[in-house]
Amino acid sequence: MFPEYDVIVVGGGHAGCEAAVAAANMGSKVMLATMNMNTIAQMSCNPAMGGVAKGQIVREIDALGGYSGIVTDHTMIQFRMLNMSKGPAMWSPRAQSDRMMFAEKWRLMLEGNENIDFWQEMVTGLVIKDGRAVGVRTGIGLEIPAKSVILTNGTFLNGLIHIGDKNFGGGRAGERASTGITEQLETLGFESGRMKTGTPPRVDGRSLNWDAMEVQPGDEVAGKFSYTDTPRLEKQRPCHITYTNKKVHEILKTGFDRSPLFNGSIRGTGPRYCPSIEDKIDRFADRDRHQLFVEPEGWKTVEIYVNGFSSSLPEEVQYKAMRLIPGFENAKMFRPGYAIEYDYFQPTQLKANLETRLVSNLFFAGQINGTTGYEEAASQGLMAGINAHLAINEKDPFILKRSDAYIGVLIDDLINKGTTEPYRMFTSRAEFRILLRQDNADIRLTPIAKAIGMNHMDERIERVEVKAASAAAVEKYFEEVSVTPEVVNAMLAEKGTTPLKQKVKLKSVLSRPQVNLEDIRGKVDHLDDFLKRFEQESIRLAEINMKYEGYLAKEQDVADKMNRLEEVKLGENIHYDGLQSLSAEAREKLNKLKPMTIGQASRISGVSPSDISVLLVHMGR
Amino acid sequence: MFPEYDVIVVGGGHAGCEAAVAAANMGSKVMLATMNMNTIAQMSCNPAMGGVAKGQIVREIDALGGYSGIVTDHTMIQFRMLNMSKGPAMWSPRAQSDRMMFAEKWRLMLEGNENIDFWQEMVTGLVIKDGRAVGVRTGIGLEIPAKSVILTNGTFLNGLIHIGDKNFGGGRAGERASTGITEQLETLGFESGRMKTGTPPRVDGRSLNWDAMEVQPGDEVAGKFSYTDTPRLEKQRPCHITYTNKKVHEILKTGFDRSPLFNGSIRGTGPRYCPSIEDKIDRFADRDRHQLFVEPEGWKTVEIYVNGFSSSLPEEVQYKAMRLIPGFENAKMFRPGYAIEYDYFQPTQLKANLETRLVSNLFFAGQINGTTGYEEAASQGLMAGINAHLAINEKDPFILKRSDAYIGVLIDDLINKGTTEPYRMFTSRAEFRILLRQDNADIRLTPIAKAIGMNHMDERIERVEVKAASAAAVEKYFEEVSVTPEVVNAMLAEKGTTPLKQKVKLKSVLSRPQVNLEDIRGKVDHLDDFLKRFEQESIRLAEINMKYEGYLAKEQDVADKMNRLEEVKLGENIHYDGLQSLSAEAREKLNKLKPMTIGQASRISGVSPSDISVLLVHMGR
Repeated sequence: MFPEYDVIVVGGGHAGCEAAVAAANMGSKVMLATMNMNTIAQMSCNPAMGGVAKGQIVREIDALGGYSGIVTDHTMIQFRMLNMSKGPAMWSPRAQSDRMMFAEKWRLMLEGNENIDFWQEMVTGLVIKDGRAVGVRTGIGLEIPAKSVILTNGTFLNGLIHIGDKNFGGGRAGERASTGITEQLETLGFESGRMKTGTPPRVDGRSLNWDAMEVQPGDEVAGKFSYTDTPRLEKQRPCHITYTNKKVHEILKTGFDRSPLFNGSIRGTGPRYCPSIEDKIDRFADRDRHQLFVEPEGWKTVEIYVNGFSSSLPEEVQYKAMRLIPGFENAKMFRPGYAIEYDYFQPTQLKANLETRLVSNLFFAGQINGTTGYEEAASQGLMAGINAHLAINEKDPFILKRSDAYIGVLIDDLINKGTTEPYRMFTSRAEFRILLRQDNADIRLTPIAKAIGMNHMDERIERVEVKAASAAAVEKYFEEVSVTPEVVNAMLAEKGTTPLKQKVKLKSVLSRPQVNLEDIRGKVDHLDDFLKRFEQESIRLAEINMKYEGYLAKEQDVADKMNRLEEVKLGENIHYDGLQSLSAEAREKLNKLKPMTIGQASRISGVSPSDISVLLVHMGR
Repeated sequence: MFPEYDVIVVGGGHAGCEAAVAAANMGSKVMLATMNMNTIAQMSCNPAMGGVAKGQIVREIDALGGYSGIVTDHTMIQFRMLNMSKGPAMWSPRAQSDRMMFAEKWRLMLEGNENIDFWQEMVTGLVIKDGRAVGVRTGIGLEIPAKSVILTNGTFLNGLIHIGDKNFGGGRAGERASTGITEQLETLGFESGRMKTGTPPRVDGRSLNWDAMEVQPGDEVAGKFSYTDTPRLEKQRPCHITYTNKKVHEILKTGFDRSPLFNGSIRGTGPRYCPSIEDKIDRFADRDRHQLFVEPEGWKTVEIYVNGFSSSLPEEVQYKAMRLIPGFENAKMFRPGYAIEYDYFQPTQLKANLETRLVSNLFFAGQINGTTGYEEAASQGLMAGINAHLAINEKDPFILKRSDAYIGVLIDDLINKGTTEPYRMFTSRAEFRILLRQDNADIRLTPIAKAIGMNHMDERIERVEVKAASAAAVEKYFEEVSVTPEVVNAMLAEKGTTPLKQKVKLKSVLSRPQVNLEDIRGKVDHLDDFLKRFEQESIRLAEINMKYEGYLAKEQDVADKMNRLEEVKLGENIHYDGLQSLSAEAREKLNKLKPMTIGQASRISGVSPSDISVLLVHMGR
């Protein structure tokens, strides 16, 4: 009934959607298998994309040819660039999306790709032959043959929903759990674990008193995620902010004895940085209030997402407590918050290309690898999709270095360190975060995407080249054109920095921490006319390059040193047991994780610098 | 956690949506409980509304203040008025809808109604006190209190999906079945049965060869369902027509031994007039081909609905056979067709207001009553919603007579005759079908809706009055203005009817079967100027009134006679056992069904005309 596909993607969430388009745009024939075609790209949790570090990931996905940014740009109802008061490494785009439009746009984009077919049914097992994934088995007993398989099951594998002391099987509210895959993988030697995540109640916006909350509008001029010609939001819908209080906490505490989090009925570990409201009260007992973001679910719907109020307490406790929050006095719920436990697989069982060590041509992406977050999932899907295509075409794997992208950091962390709690990206996880900015993801990554054979990159490459050349031209101008004290001293005094005594190059003025390019504009002859020739984003890139020149160079230097270790390949066939000088722990870990490079080995916990020296000597360095 | 609602509606399909808005627009506080708010108003089967007799029902729903017509008008991609070559009683509007838009529009319209609240969870039982429904119980153990409950569970009650010899629980592809309600109702004395329905494979439109099929475009000028100011479709998307053939049938037959329809594994009875393709081949063995309508699922999606190819044969048999259909040589499936069995309750257990006899303030609407079809379900939902409101306000039930509406025929048939196979509406089921036309549903029903207290009817009533007055003015003109032979004889000759010999009234020319109003227009002085004053639909109504005057009068006369029997109320307390002259069968049936009127009694099978005479004598007539 089915042709042999190049790639089967199991699951239609953020990871599955990106995996499908990535493999398809690399040229593979893809089958996307999902339990329900009507719920493709359903945002299970909050209706938002991006945020700190996550927004950078979405920009990276876009730069690599993924669609998360494009879909978000088309469906957003609000945009904010977070952390604008901090340095550009911290600037992070974030958007609220219309939940229904987001899912519809993704589905239509997938349908628009002629390399993607669809099958609507539960996948219950893999077909494995000689240690390779060669297809999947479905609930009604069909076999779909393929050269590779990507699992992106999200929270569906043996999903168990908890509300208070009640629990029942389900992959998401109102949807069935997926069974069979974990059990089969365990018989093959995979180690599975349980994780837990949660979601807040959904509320009827018609029942809220908006006047009792703070308005949180979008940015004056909305930004975008995609480097392509996506539309820019004109009108925005605001979010609102409100706070819990002592009374709310008191009520919530009355349910703690029936909390599946506290009474031991949930085995899985929850996301540390996206805790439930009961977790927050428990862990930060001294805090009298917690901030809540009251987010609309779309342009027209009255459904509201209460960000920050995730809970699996008994529903009547959630309800009573919620009604003591300012603005929520008469709130009506559509459904209570709940926790969900699901199976994941320790990601140290993966190679750097997200392929499993035990079964070749089998890839994992998303929450199945122990991550949390749409962006983390989507980026893994993209990488798994690309790598599945490369693997079946016997090409080198596509691995992003830690200095290339947050996505590189994410996967490197996962496969080397593993995780026992839902892994979320932060800027602090990246050593090179001045390099890994949201404004330069295209410069960093689009040429790489083109080089590995991602389709439709020609126009994007052109844009990148124009942007880079423009930035260089601006930098050159600042290096060459001088400015006299009379022109800028008033401004410098106003900014509280010492005045010029003589003519200097524009760049030396700009490099002062107190001075931005905007401060110079309008003061220096010809500068404005010159800058008019370029896009705003090129000018901004030039400004960052000039203002942070020293930091950038230093980070690049460290990165280059580290990356030299990445170039020393170890391969899978090194006989670590024969290297007597290695510590016993290092031998064990290296045997298990089989790092591809010395660099990767150096990041395995338990592998010491002296172990690395042993390896370097062994490799003849 | 919940206030006491006036009405709880269980289920968010066509019946549930109409029930919720009807009760809400009557003034009740309504809770709509659904397993998944993302699937409210999902069209489970074909993406179309209306058709023969069904289109009339949608117009009636609209005239009574329901929303099915409005939602369809906003989301249609194609409109056709069927049967235009037949008399106006047969004219039937039908539209293809965009499946996603249809669901979204319904949800937003429900959200726009301040009397409707939502709860997303499975309802697993009723709360019953002293023989009255006073709430529902949910899967997580909540109780929602209410004065009345309407069950609209569709195919979800113990839903069992069959594909070949495989079967599994489910309410719809990819969705869970609903459990608990049937079991509870049975303990209360309700009799449940099993019915079966089916749906065809969904197909990837990108894989079809459209050139090998006939195009079926929409009407040149698209019609509408709603009498309100809904938009009129400008651009339409065509359907296509293709046919099965002997080879297709041969392949399908190879799966008959594994067909759940033929090998006894399906207990429920399927819809006679919407049979599966295997049923058609089996029952009409002499036919070499069957027509298939290839329907797009929306404006943009590539998903295709293969109307006429419903099947529960093994999926590989469906697939192989489908690929022998012209245009389907390379067809890719998204999912196979399947059959679904579900619980229904014999509708003779209901009163004429759709309330159950055993539990007061408990109403049933839709497939739970053994019907098939969106329109049949929606209309019952509307009536149950209105009647739940009336019941809890101790007002008389709202019952449509067989001469009022197709909806009256539907409910009268259900409660008096019951059904052992999915009941579908046909024009032939209505004795007064010249009265029950699609063009006059507003004239027939909007005043009644206003009279019983349906909100927002003022503007509609005004429109109805204008339309009726306009039609009357046109009729008067035709009765008063004469026409000379010179003016129309050429046209009459062309139409093959005898020429005039002398001046006659315009109406007498129009009453000839060969002549339509269009034929007269442009020929008679002043007529066009006069008609310009009126809406097209008023003119059409006048034309039908004049051309079918005799038939209309005769049907009205029969209806009046029949309705006189409807006025003889029997009530629930008649002691039928004491009426010795009744036949034993009549006594039994009358005791069981407790008809409200002599008219209703006369339509119960087993109650003879002589039994009716006995009753009339007993009632003092």
